Amino acid sequence: MQNLNIVPFVSVDNMMKLVLHVGVERVLTDLAACIEADFRRWESFDKTPRVASHSEVGVIELMPTSDGALYGFKYVNGHPRNIRAGLQTVTAFGLLAEVETGYPVLLTEMTILTALRTAAMSALAAKHLAPQGATTMAMIGNGAQAEFQALAFAAVCGVTHVRLHDIDPAATAKCQRNLAGSGLRVTPCRTAEEAMEGAQIVTTCTADKNHATILTDNMVGAGVHINAVGGDCPGKTELHRDILLRASIFVEYPPQTRIEGEIQQLPADHPVTELWQVITGAAKGRSDARQITLFDSVGFAIEDFSALRYIHDQLKAHPYSEPLDMIADPDDPRDLYGMLLRAKAKAA
Amino acid sequence: MQNLNIVPFVSVDNMMKLVLHVGVERVLTDLAACIEADFRRWESFDKTPRVASHSEVGVIELMPTSDGALYGFKYVNGHPRNIRAGLQTVTAFGLLAEVETGYPVLLTEMTILTALRTAAMSALAAKHLAPQGATTMAMIGNGAQAEFQALAFAAVCGVTHVRLHDIDPAATAKCQRNLAGSGLRVTPCRTAEEAMEGAQIVTTCTADKNHATILTDNMVGAGVHINAVGGDCPGKTELHRDILLRASIFVEYPPQTRIEGEIQQLPADHPVTELWQVITGAAKGRSDARQITLFDSVGFAIEDFSALRYIHDQLKAHPYSEPLDMIADPDDPRDLYGMLLRAKAKAA
Repeated sequence: MQNLNIVPFVSVDNMMKLVLHVGVERVLTDLAACIEADFRRWESFDKTPRVASHSEVGVIELMPTSDGALYGFKYVNGHPRNIRAGLQTVTAFGLLAEVETGYPVLLTEMTILTALRTAAMSALAAKHLAPQGATTMAMIGNGAQAEFQALAFAAVCGVTHVRLHDIDPAATAKCQRNLAGSGLRVTPCRTAEEAMEGAQIVTTCTADKNHATILTDNMVGAGVHINAVGGDCPGKTELHRDILLRASIFVEYPPQTRIEGEIQQLPADHPVTELWQVITGAAKGRSDARQITLFDSVGFAIEDFSALRYIHDQLKAHPYSEPLDMIADPDDPRDLYGMLLRAKAKAA
Repeated sequence: MQNLNIVPFVSVDNMMKLVLHVGVERVLTDLAACIEADFRRWESFDKTPRVASHSEVGVIELMPTSDGALYGFKYVNGHPRNIRAGLQTVTAFGLLAEVETGYPVLLTEMTILTALRTAAMSALAAKHLAPQGATTMAMIGNGAQAEFQALAFAAVCGVTHVRLHDIDPAATAKCQRNLAGSGLRVTPCRTAEEAMEGAQIVTTCTADKNHATILTDNMVGAGVHINAVGGDCPGKTELHRDILLRASIFVEYPPQTRIEGEIQQLPADHPVTELWQVITGAAKGRSDARQITLFDSVGFAIEDFSALRYIHDQLKAHPYSEPLDMIADPDDPRDLYGMLLRAKAKAA
């Protein structure tokens, strides 16, 4: 048994080492499998919409969940203007604890891990919803999430060609450069319309905190699967409302998506399908080739839980962590003050 | 400016060093002053009841709040049976972040810090509610919180005599031993009734997760101030209902206390006074010498926020922290994947 006061901590540096050691594509595939397994047992989780603290410039959120044996939560912020100051739009860390004792068993950076699990989640949804044989994806918004999305769709869904567009050509160039050795065919496009030519899957992942219209109705042809990632908090959407009215909409957790997702534009009783039910077979996914399917992704706590337990498992074989003296552990648990006194005596 | 990826972390060891360096009594007095200052500006805080995940053996909670400039939250568990396995009943850690960017500025152990802030909060409430000239406190429940309570009441309220009782005499002996050099007169008592003889203040702080009756109505005389610390989650209370009906009840945040405090035994509309209003002068505290005042303490997020900003301030003069590589910081914030690629190139 580890020392009771010690919590294994995965720093940013160690997360990169772990991911590179296992391989990015392998991590994405594993994460999609972990999320799929947890979505299959959806009903065994404690679920609550994330706890958000909004300000004018962004949001800070806590996303807790538990399966009765483990408890996990993520701290994550979303600050679209951060980028102007050279900061990340989204940063995150997370924690896993034993329900039995309440003691933490893992603290980890989750900025990189969230990028990975978000992409894995998108690809998992597309595996169940995209048209058969889809090989081309339009990627609109080429920021921090773009490469992860491209690699996840390649690894999980067999996508071989990504068509990139961003209002900032430098972002597209960065994404193209980073994907150069990936085996994917990469086509930079000057407009969103151009990016969507021949694409069976359209991923939108832009960062402005307002009601943007990245896609208009006339841009979306029959049979397309839309993976809408960027509309993920109140007041932030990417799709024109008319697209939503034509699409079959799939969501993670309706009480949260109705507040944060694209469907915040629709009446609260607009029909949506919960993705976990598609995965278990309780609900239908794509039913015909001309159907427009939309995964209105906002990110849910169970996905972070899956990612946390994956990292916790990986550490057994690949111990890329450091010990953190985070839990007070007096010899007698009732003698917390005595621990202070003994530290004083020792220092004297 | 600190490196963007680095979050200062206060380990258990460093927290002890910091507290001992400043002095326990001084920390308790400072914390009471910080909490008082934050309670005075109560209306400027974002408030929400804590987010609890209950299981059969305990609870894991997240307690977030924000004053618009800083955001803080605490992770805390409560597992009464932990003590049988040699574990702490309550362990905690916390985080402070900038609202402007969402970036964390402090991660700290909070098991010791929670013990300190809980005691400081109790003493602050008593400063406003206890009868004038109170010098003797009965301390029922002599576990991990007991010494902190005794020292806080000495430092903040001028208590000079504590009368200890616990169903386990070993806990009382431990508490007496630890308080030996404190300057307090300490009297161990075989029963709760004996402990209450001559006491103007009664603190109850026991840990069983059920409806216990630590105090019955006939034990409580006129003019006493009751500081009820241990009744702090649904199904866990310490006082007989009849005491509540005779007392003027003061609480931190009613929506939370009605669920978790002693007043969970009363109808939802039973009148209570918010302590912050007593502190600002908007509401009356103790109004006569025979009144029974009850501080129904459950612990609120703002108190943790006060403690977090206090530690954050103290680190400027006493840098008992270590740097934690917790926030991914690519050169270009949109190039998170590129950071991975560069780490790979560097390792090769």
